[in-house]
Amino acid sequence: MAQQPSKGLADVVAAATALSDIDGRAGRLSYRGYDINQLARAATFEEVAYLLQRGTPPGASELACYRAELLAGRELGALVTADLVAVAHQQEPMEALRTLVSLASASDPDKDSNAADANQRKAARLTAQQPVLVAGYEAARNGREVPQPDPGLSLAGNFLLQVTGAPPSARAAEILDICLVLHADHTMNASTFAARVCAATLSDMHSAVVAALGTLKGPLHGGANEQVMRLLEEIAKNAQADPVDAAGGEVAARLSRGEKIMGFGHRVYKVEDPRATILRGLAGELAQAAGDDTYFRMSRRIEETVLAEKGLYPNVDFFAAAVYHYLGIPTDLFTPVFSVSRMAGWTAHVIEQHADNRLIRPDSEYIGEAGLTWVSLAAR
Amino acid sequence: MAQQPSKGLADVVAAATALSDIDGRAGRLSYRGYDINQLARAATFEEVAYLLQRGTPPGASELACYRAELLAGRELGALVTADLVAVAHQQEPMEALRTLVSLASASDPDKDSNAADANQRKAARLTAQQPVLVAGYEAARNGREVPQPDPGLSLAGNFLLQVTGAPPSARAAEILDICLVLHADHTMNASTFAARVCAATLSDMHSAVVAALGTLKGPLHGGANEQVMRLLEEIAKNAQADPVDAAGGEVAARLSRGEKIMGFGHRVYKVEDPRATILRGLAGELAQAAGDDTYFRMSRRIEETVLAEKGLYPNVDFFAAAVYHYLGIPTDLFTPVFSVSRMAGWTAHVIEQHADNRLIRPDSEYIGEAGLTWVSLAAR
Repeated sequence: MAQQPSKGLADVVAAATALSDIDGRAGRLSYRGYDINQLARAATFEEVAYLLQRGTPPGASELACYRAELLAGRELGALVTADLVAVAHQQEPMEALRTLVSLASASDPDKDSNAADANQRKAARLTAQQPVLVAGYEAARNGREVPQPDPGLSLAGNFLLQVTGAPPSARAAEILDICLVLHADHTMNASTFAARVCAATLSDMHSAVVAALGTLKGPLHGGANEQVMRLLEEIAKNAQADPVDAAGGEVAARLSRGEKIMGFGHRVYKVEDPRATILRGLAGELAQAAGDDTYFRMSRRIEETVLAEKGLYPNVDFFAAAVYHYLGIPTDLFTPVFSVSRMAGWTAHVIEQHADNRLIRPDSEYIGEAGLTWVSLAAR
Repeated sequence: MAQQPSKGLADVVAAATALSDIDGRAGRLSYRGYDINQLARAATFEEVAYLLQRGTPPGASELACYRAELLAGRELGALVTADLVAVAHQQEPMEALRTLVSLASASDPDKDSNAADANQRKAARLTAQQPVLVAGYEAARNGREVPQPDPGLSLAGNFLLQVTGAPPSARAAEILDICLVLHADHTMNASTFAARVCAATLSDMHSAVVAALGTLKGPLHGGANEQVMRLLEEIAKNAQADPVDAAGGEVAARLSRGEKIMGFGHRVYKVEDPRATILRGLAGELAQAAGDDTYFRMSRRIEETVLAEKGLYPNVDFFAAAVYHYLGIPTDLFTPVFSVSRMAGWTAHVIEQHADNRLIRPDSEYIGEAGLTWVSLAAR
């Protein structure tokens, strides 16, 4: 007998994982047993990607090998290179990334294998290519060349160099690195779950990641960080007087009309998302360094308003918007930046799913009519 | 509190749907309340696609309008047209379809809307384009042109014309039409579920369908029909004497080694899948017409062997293999043919999901270590 339906599978356990864990009541998140606060303070994104994809923190020589693998893996295949400019001019960022990653499988030497070692190599390549695709997209649509990567920079630093076209400050690269660490995995979120549903038919890693990219695109998932920035920009543009007061007033008005404010609340966290705490601090630091903290103060006022009116805390998307803005990333690339990080988690989940697979095939509840008789067209 | 985990979500209700219903104990399948046997006998694929996507059987003028919409919708966009030949030469069929449908969104005038009317128009276009993409892929990799469609033929007939390069017999077109009716929807199968997980973030129909295509690609799902044909071909090639006896022997040997035979058993059906019953009849008819019933008799012997040894019935994939083979479809296009039909169901599920949406975000069970302390790289 099927169990009672739970709309949206809330609180239904869909899979077992050793990759990440959330304690929603305590507001804790960990990757493979390491608390996110420790990782944000002391681990780089490359170490976290290794940890997720290969199971343990890398030693010095393992990390050096992995970094070399990432460097070699940056190479885009022939189909991607041939299509990048046309796709960048005709598709929006997440639409384009869905296409480009689907094209990329053609050049992957491990495309036909789901074996653990092949999957690990593909995971490294996909992790290496995602920032190159996002930066290549941004350069192509603006008709400029992508700067050569700097071998002395981290993945985050090279991404900032290539996406903005200018070398980042050391602190900017560090801050983006922390953002990538924070977004790398988050249990059975919708895009990761889509990747696992796909991989569980024993389809390949590229198919699973393409499914995840299309899922992250939605405004109820990865698209939320961009919606937050659009709201800030819109309020600032229309404000008659102080934009901070305008932010509080506008959000209160929207809430009173029953509208949803993006970037607040989470199905799993009952207290503040630990990633939001860290991102609030980074947004404040960048605002001060920028010499214009308007968006940060607006964000704080919105946060206070939503907490007072609805009792909801900001989630990972809310302060990420201000952080990415201050880092010079175009607003419509916020969700792509999320994908640069989450690629580490998606690929690790595919490895885990393939290692102990069972088809994910739920039941449904039928709510339509029954026992109808089909009448041929002539008699209808 | 999370419920107990059910591996692969077996028997867990993930969504409500009015599109299709399975009675696994009675071996019954219905679309919107109409039994599949009635539909296979009396409805065309176009009528079934309309029924699924728009809710009721079309009247004569509604069907004429829908057919006109399908005809206009066949047009491939600029990105797809530009890339088809390169993709056909560098990607395998399901990999290529995943890419081509992702490219296709660029030219869809309704790409930015999830409204019901926009979704219905996109559903018709995607349903119209899928056979054109499959036939275009086949022609491109063989360096030939696709014949012009014949306005007097059904979607199935035009697909056979374009994929084989020759006009089909009236009966061949009818038989493929029945196959498309049989494969159009099947409750919460893995690819449909992936499409709904994607759509439930309020991502768009193309993203959802791209996720579904990548999921159907897996050998535990759509890839199974191709695996069945590969087994038949391999046994026939290696048979020392009668291939029918060889088929029984080989399958018995594989079962005794604990191997899985593709095309048998189903998580939901406890008796014979009603689609298998119809497809067995069609395979027999085509075998007789072809004047060589070897593959059909081999299929029957395999069926008897698996039933005797394991108590498993053939599912939809098993006799579909022989049917598609006798219709002249290349083996590596069997899963793409499945996608030509299932596009009707996927798109209908996206329409249904968007009409009453909730994010699909399950829980997971954490099975890794906890409370570890991150040691900095220098100290590891």
